[in-house]
Amino acid sequence: MRIENRDFNDAENFFSGNRQVLWNEISGVIADMPLHLKASDQSGKQGSLIFDPVGTNETIKTSLIGMGWSSGVPMPPAYKFLGSDVDFVKNDILVEVQFSNYPFLVNNIVRSELLYRDQTIMGRQSIKGVVIIAKARMFPASNSTLYYEQAVTQTRALARKQMFDVPVRVVGMFENYGVVPAVFTEYPARYSRTPANRANIRVNIQQAARNGARALIERA
Amino acid sequence: MRIENRDFNDAENFFSGNRQVLWNEISGVIADMPLHLKASDQSGKQGSLIFDPVGTNETIKTSLIGMGWSSGVPMPPAYKFLGSDVDFVKNDILVEVQFSNYPFLVNNIVRSELLYRDQTIMGRQSIKGVVIIAKARMFPASNSTLYYEQAVTQTRALARKQMFDVPVRVVGMFENYGVVPAVFTEYPARYSRTPANRANIRVNIQQAARNGARALIERA
Repeated sequence: MRIENRDFNDAENFFSGNRQVLWNEISGVIADMPLHLKASDQSGKQGSLIFDPVGTNETIKTSLIGMGWSSGVPMPPAYKFLGSDVDFVKNDILVEVQFSNYPFLVNNIVRSELLYRDQTIMGRQSIKGVVIIAKARMFPASNSTLYYEQAVTQTRALARKQMFDVPVRVVGMFENYGVVPAVFTEYPARYSRTPANRANIRVNIQQAARNGARALIERA
Repeated sequence: MRIENRDFNDAENFFSGNRQVLWNEISGVIADMPLHLKASDQSGKQGSLIFDPVGTNETIKTSLIGMGWSSGVPMPPAYKFLGSDVDFVKNDILVEVQFSNYPFLVNNIVRSELLYRDQTIMGRQSIKGVVIIAKARMFPASNSTLYYEQAVTQTRALARKQMFDVPVRVVGMFENYGVVPAVFTEYPARYSRTPANRANIRVNIQQAARNGARALIERA
């Protein structure tokens, strides 16, 4: 897939030098993975191809773990009220993959900031920088789920008011228009995380006529 | 009902003097209202009496509007991503009634803080202090809904790290143990906000044997 990103609190500087290697691991995982799709079960859109958060999460997880990232690192007990664990940690970098409803972005930033201010050890080191990964708006997706452009707007609003000091890089997952490879997964039931069937397909991604609308994705 | 409250960022001082009158309006509404209950539709608990957020919200809303509070004041467009409106505003005080899932507390505090830092006019004045109302843990309630003791713990954790400067008073709605009057509302369907039937009843509230567990509430 294709990446765009926006930096807050001097994240550009933070992710340079020694940490460039870790950023290259994260961006490499996204660059190397295909778009994951599933069939919508929403009324009126049944069967149409939409972004698959479960398949995407799985692929990111498998790849990052293979590079020595820790997954599901527990939050300290005092902050369990902001969620039980964080997605990925390596050295002093925390990664959150956020395909849920849009209010979770504020939750992710607030809890990252608390860990940062506390110099909480997550894994072996204290957290000094954060990466938040979201899908781009271009993909048809479940209602009210966070998209990259929205994540940037929200993070910018919080940053302008100095609500957080931790360096944050917001990352968007995009795909080129035209015919591209994709992974199509069938799930036996809504909310199921266990795929019934998974296949490599090719899809044609057409840009929406209206600015800001989702792309049309069809089997090629 | 009975009130407890905890103050953050010198809210005690903020709600004294001229603002004491406004605090008296809020606390008076809660003190004067009966406990609102409904029948649980959760499997295993069907028919048991639990806290009714819809009836409670309605009563608070009717009473505060009668005292000149504005309800559903729109968020400025830049902050719509944190919700479309706030619950109640009068002069420079914002009130949020929060019976939803526990992550909404952080959202409420963050958006109040943004309004405060921006000196945003909500209604006629800019917001200088916040009241967040929650039910006490003692009441059986829908799963994962915020309760007062949890709200205090969360707000304290954020306050300790200086995540917000706005004065916040967290208010808990309690009830005495023993036989008390209550309002029982039947709703035609889950998530419905239109009551099918409403009746004044008397209930016996028994303290749970185990510390931290919910009370047992039965018709008296």
